[in-house]
This record gives sequence, structure tokens and C-alpha cells, in this order.
Amino acid sequence: MKIVIINSGSSSIKYQLIEMPSRDVICSGMIDRIGLDISNITYKTNTDSLEENIPIPNHKIGLERIAQLLMDDSIGVIKSTQEIDVVGHRVVHGGASFSNTVVIDSAVKEKIRQLFALAPLHNPANLEGINVASAIFKEAQQVAVFDTAFHQTIPVIAHKYAIPNKFLTENKIRVYGFHGTSHKYVSERAIEYLDKSNKIITIHLGNGCSMTAIKDGESIDHSLGFAPSNGLIMGTRSGDIDPSLVFYMVNMLGYSLDAVNNLLLKESGMLGLTGFSDLRDIESQAEQGNAACQLALAMNAYRIKKFIGSYTAVMNGLDAIIFTAGIGENSSYIRKLVCTDMDYFGLELDDVKNQIRSKEMREINTPNSKTKIMVIPTNEEIEIANQVYDLLLN
Amino acid sequence: MKIVIINSGSSSIKYQLIEMPSRDVICSGMIDRIGLDISNITYKTNTDSLEENIPIPNHKIGLERIAQLLMDDSIGVIKSTQEIDVVGHRVVHGGASFSNTVVIDSAVKEKIRQLFALAPLHNPANLEGINVASAIFKEAQQVAVFDTAFHQTIPVIAHKYAIPNKFLTENKIRVYGFHGTSHKYVSERAIEYLDKSNKIITIHLGNGCSMTAIKDGESIDHSLGFAPSNGLIMGTRSGDIDPSLVFYMVNMLGYSLDAVNNLLLKESGMLGLTGFSDLRDIESQAEQGNAACQLALAMNAYRIKKFIGSYTAVMNGLDAIIFTAGIGENSSYIRKLVCTDMDYFGLELDDVKNQIRSKEMREINTPNSKTKIMVIPTNEEIEIANQVYDLLLN
Repeated sequence: MKIVIINSGSSSIKYQLIEMPSRDVICSGMIDRIGLDISNITYKTNTDSLEENIPIPNHKIGLERIAQLLMDDSIGVIKSTQEIDVVGHRVVHGGASFSNTVVIDSAVKEKIRQLFALAPLHNPANLEGINVASAIFKEAQQVAVFDTAFHQTIPVIAHKYAIPNKFLTENKIRVYGFHGTSHKYVSERAIEYLDKSNKIITIHLGNGCSMTAIKDGESIDHSLGFAPSNGLIMGTRSGDIDPSLVFYMVNMLGYSLDAVNNLLLKESGMLGLTGFSDLRDIESQAEQGNAACQLALAMNAYRIKKFIGSYTAVMNGLDAIIFTAGIGENSSYIRKLVCTDMDYFGLELDDVKNQIRSKEMREINTPNSKTKIMVIPTNEEIEIANQVYDLLLN
Repeated sequence: MKIVIINSGSSSIKYQLIEMPSRDVICSGMIDRIGLDISNITYKTNTDSLEENIPIPNHKIGLERIAQLLMDDSIGVIKSTQEIDVVGHRVVHGGASFSNTVVIDSAVKEKIRQLFALAPLHNPANLEGINVASAIFKEAQQVAVFDTAFHQTIPVIAHKYAIPNKFLTENKIRVYGFHGTSHKYVSERAIEYLDKSNKIITIHLGNGCSMTAIKDGESIDHSLGFAPSNGLIMGTRSGDIDPSLVFYMVNMLGYSLDAVNNLLLKESGMLGLTGFSDLRDIESQAEQGNAACQLALAMNAYRIKKFIGSYTAVMNGLDAIIFTAGIGENSSYIRKLVCTDMDYFGLELDDVKNQIRSKEMREINTPNSKTKIMVIPTNEEIEIANQVYDLLLN
């Protein structure tokens, strides 16, 4: 079964062609800067790779270009779009409607549309990707895998807000949780690997950042809530704030409500604290003595520590913490800050192992560490392919 | 030195007359339901007590009635308002202006007024109390003790939000922390009593609720932030929510921003979850099988557990947790929920000791409990009197 995985963002498309059940990645790549003057396209197979810088005005033209590359005479991997059995789409917000992977029909698309307001940065682009892919891969089934699905096991004690009950029953306002395919994938790898893994905390640090308390394999609490904006400090998102700031900024500082929303989503987090948006720049600045960068990294790690404590409390124990995603897999600096002075929680980092850069799953704790500290590279595309394959076979 | 302590709320005045330095409480009482058809007045000395149910339309008439009672021929304790040396006022929000107790002058009053927007439920009533007391106790000095002062030691890593830096530097938006006189008072009692008390967590559960991480006697982190609205689930306040709820309620559900603010402050928390505002009713309903009340209590305790975990993480240890204020001192139900399944943190509750009702400081842990669990009745009035006395003597 040949599955094209599409992860469509507001100005980007990430894609992979995966053969199942072997999980062979036949090709992969992405288009970045869609809609700008010059877009960047990458395409990579086992033998070839290509990079183009041409204008890609919209997602339709972008996906058409991907289809052309897949069928290219010299570097292509298929002869016709008919060879594609399924297109698997990452959809960020499944709301209360979707707790599982589903075959997409018009009713599913309508529900994804109804959730635009809950994930304005993500769901519109996801739906656009579905519509365009349906037009190009006409014979393929279209399947949606939701970031929120893994978190449907979060019990009411943790997913309900302390606001009048009607907002949950009528308006479905609750903690949904995000990055579900990533938390699911790395927690399953950890559980396969570890002797003892009843109580683990997965720490997904990428552009978006989130943490999940995973007890006996199920998500029981999560740092992002109704929308992917709160919890940890992210690249441009504030994470947790006192909500009274919103009222104060509007009523006393003269901001519009939209301006405050934009500020918290796009101008805050590490960018707002340092002026830099790339963590590698922030770490390099911090190492050169930039106090704002040092403080921002310390605040970031401090917040992660607090969630480790919270989740250890609600699980009454901790077997392992797992770092994943771009920053989690690569930033030894952040991992070191998080694991320092955490011996009460049994964390003992091996500084040498922490410095190793690798694409492999690895332990970075000392042999004596009571709690395991692991780095597990995430693979949302393989997880989506697995879920699509399981759905269509059952 | 005779000090009248005034704790003025939106519809209430709590008062005490305290002799310093002996700390003798000469009389105490409160006026409740100010502005309603019938108000309730209590007045209590060592020998007499009185309760009145008469209309008290505003704070001025309320404080005048208190002054009359203090000077009453049969049950009074002074002959003239001139005997009062100082009036000590509780002021909730001191913002960035006040890190210490101050003698009130017109500049201080103006600053308290400028902070109305940060504590709309509290600061206006506090200022009203100051103005009325100044007119009645003309010869007395007026002194303000701020709830935020104890938390001025919270380091930048914990008091800064991950939003653009200018909001801290220019607008003074930061974590201020509240209930400071209470957290200070009970933590000092705990430190006097305990052998080991470097790392303690104080849990103030009243109408407002908050927790403080106290390391070596200093507040280093706190659950309330810029305004007294976030963190724990309170009587009518939501505590922590995903801030995206505010935008969603306005943009998608058609609420005005003021209506959302009002909803989060006055219609949420335990009231929003259960329909009851008095915790005793909620506990009694829960015991009779009311599922909404059971869930609300469980959510309340779950949130407290998470903060215990967070603060243990940032202190890398825990010597004691302290319950205080109306609910913390009296609700064995909540204390039991909080301390159950927390042996990872060394908490072992003694169920029999937990049931004892007392006005005394007490341990409620088992002898083997690694972490102490204490109930310490708060006394904000004595703490205010201490601070006023110290200020005027130095």
C-alpha cells in the first residue's frame, strides 16, 4: 500500500511517500514559503535529491508540483497518481468530534471547517491540503489523523475548566491536547524499550511545545488546552499567562482584542523575550553572554520543570522523561537546564551522553539515575502511516 | 499602642483592635452584606459579644457604627477615637510601587487608585476603607500593608511572563502574588515549629485561593499572578484557564470582553461547577452523592496536587506543606483528597488527626511521614499589627 502523508501548514507542505506495511520511505520533502515571492521546494529519494526555488503561489500549485516530481521521468518514483492508494492528512484540531483516524468525506470536511476558530493557525491549511489532494490523487482514499485524538483519554478531572458547566456540555470547551501523533509515537517507542514505563512524561519541543503525562500508555494530562497556545514557552507563543493580562491590555493599554491574540501567538515566547526566533541563535547568544537569551532559556526550562513536577504528582511517580522534536532532540543546552537540580525526581543526567548528537533513540541518564532520561526522535509521518494502514485494514 | 486593623472588602469590613506589643486582641468583629437590605454586624470583646442585623448602606456608615460600638458605654473598650494610635489597612495590590508597609499619604492613596484595574474586586474597597477611617479616626496614623509585599522576593525567572520584554519594563506586567500577609504569617509559624523547613509550600484556601513556594523563608513562586484571578480553583474564580478561551468566547460565542471577565471572576470556580458557593454545602452535597460536587472537589484537589508537584520541582525538595485559611483550616475533605496518593512526595496523612477541628497549629501527618503536613490557622490581622508596629518603631 502506497501512502502519501501530507502535513499542510499555513505557508508550507511537508510530504512523504511511504510503502506499508514495510514502512519504507520512498521519498520525502517539503515546500516552504508558499505565497511569497520565492518558495523553497525539496524532494528526496534514496538515490536522488532536488531543491528548487520558484514561486509557489498557493497550496494547489504546490501539491501539483509535488505530484509532478513524484512522476518525473528521471527522479520520479511512480508513473501515475493512480498508484497512490491513500493520502493521509495530519489535521491539528479534531475537537470533540474525532477521537480516531477517519476516512474523509464531506461531513468530515465540514466538521474540520467548524473547528477553524479553535486552531486558526492550522485547521484552515489542513482542510486546504485535503481539498487539493482530493483533486490531484483522485483515486486515492483521503484519511485524516488528528493531533487531538491521542488525548481523548484525558479524564474529565484534567480536561474540564473551572467555568460554568454549560461551556463544556454545550460549547465543548475543554482541554483537547495537541501534538498527539508525536506523543503517541515516542511514548510507544519508550514503552517498548524500557523495563518500567507505567509513568512517563513526554516533552515535545519544536516550534510548538507541549508535555504529556502518560500513565499505562494513555495520555492522562497535557500542557496545551483548548487551542495550541498555552502551557510551555514556545517559539513565538507565550504559553501560560494570567488571563487577566488580556483584559488589562485591552482595557488599560488600549490594544484591540485581535492585537492581543496576535501578540500572544506570534510575538511572544522566545521571540518576545530575546528578539530571536531560532533557538540555535538564542543558545549561541546565551553562550556569548547575552543576558536576555540566558534568562529566556532559563525561564523555558523552569516551566518544563514545573510540568514535570505537576505530572509526577498526578501520577504519584515517574519512570522516565522523554525529550523529542526539533529542540528536544537537538538542544543539549535545554535538556541540561531541565535536568539540573532535579534529583528529588530521580533525574541524573549523563553530561557526555547528553552532548551526543544522533538520529537514534538513546538514554542520556547515568547508570544510577532512578528515572530514565531519554531522547527519542519523533516521526509523525510514520505514525500517521501506521494509523492509516491500521484503519484501512480493519 | 492601640491599632485598629481594617480589612475592607467590596461588601464587608473585618476589624480588630489590637494592643501592641502584647498582641492582645481587645475586640474584633465584622460587618457583612453592606449595601443589602439587612447587614450583619458582629462585635466581640473578652467579656461581651453582640450581633446586630440592621441596614448598613455603605462603608462610611459601617465604620461609624464600629466606632460607636468601640466607644459604647456598656460594652465599649475605648472612650474616644483619640485613643486609637494607628489604623492598619490591608491593601490587596501594591503593584510595583510597594514592597513594604507604608504610612498612607495622598501620594500612596493615588497609587492605590492607579492599581484599581489590577485588583478590581479589592483595591477600590481598600481605598474606601482608608478614606472613611481617616475621617473617623482623625488623630490616628493610617498605614497600609500590602498583600503583594511578601512576594517581592520572587525571582525574575518566576515573575516574568513570556511576552515581549517591554510589558515588564514599561507596563510592570509581572507575577505579583497575593495573600502575602497570610503566607508570611503561617510560613513563619511553621519555620519556628519545624526542625527542617527550608522548602515549604503554603496552601491558602479561602474565598480566594493561592499557593506559595517558600525557600529559606522567602517566597520564590506563587500561583496567583498579575491579578488575583489565576492558579487554583476558587469560590467564584476560574483560576488557570487556556487564555484562548477569552478570544473564543468573544469572537465565536458573542460575549463582550467585560462579560467574559465577569464570568471568570464571579460565575466560575466552585460556583460555576456546582451551583453552590459555600464549600460546606458542596461537601455535604458530595457526601449525599451529588456527582457535580464530587467532581468539583476532585478538580480542586487535583489542581492543588499539581502545584505541590511544580513547587517541589523548582525547590528540588519538600519539607512540609501547610494548609491555612477558612477552607484549608476546616475542610478535612479537601485535605484528604490532596494528600491521597502522594507518597512519592513523602506525604502520609493521619486520617484521625485530619478530622480534628481546632484553632491550634497542628501536624496531621503520621509519625512516619517524610514530609510534614500541617494546619496552621492564619491571622492576617496580627501579622498586619506586627508590621505596623515594626514600621512605626523603626
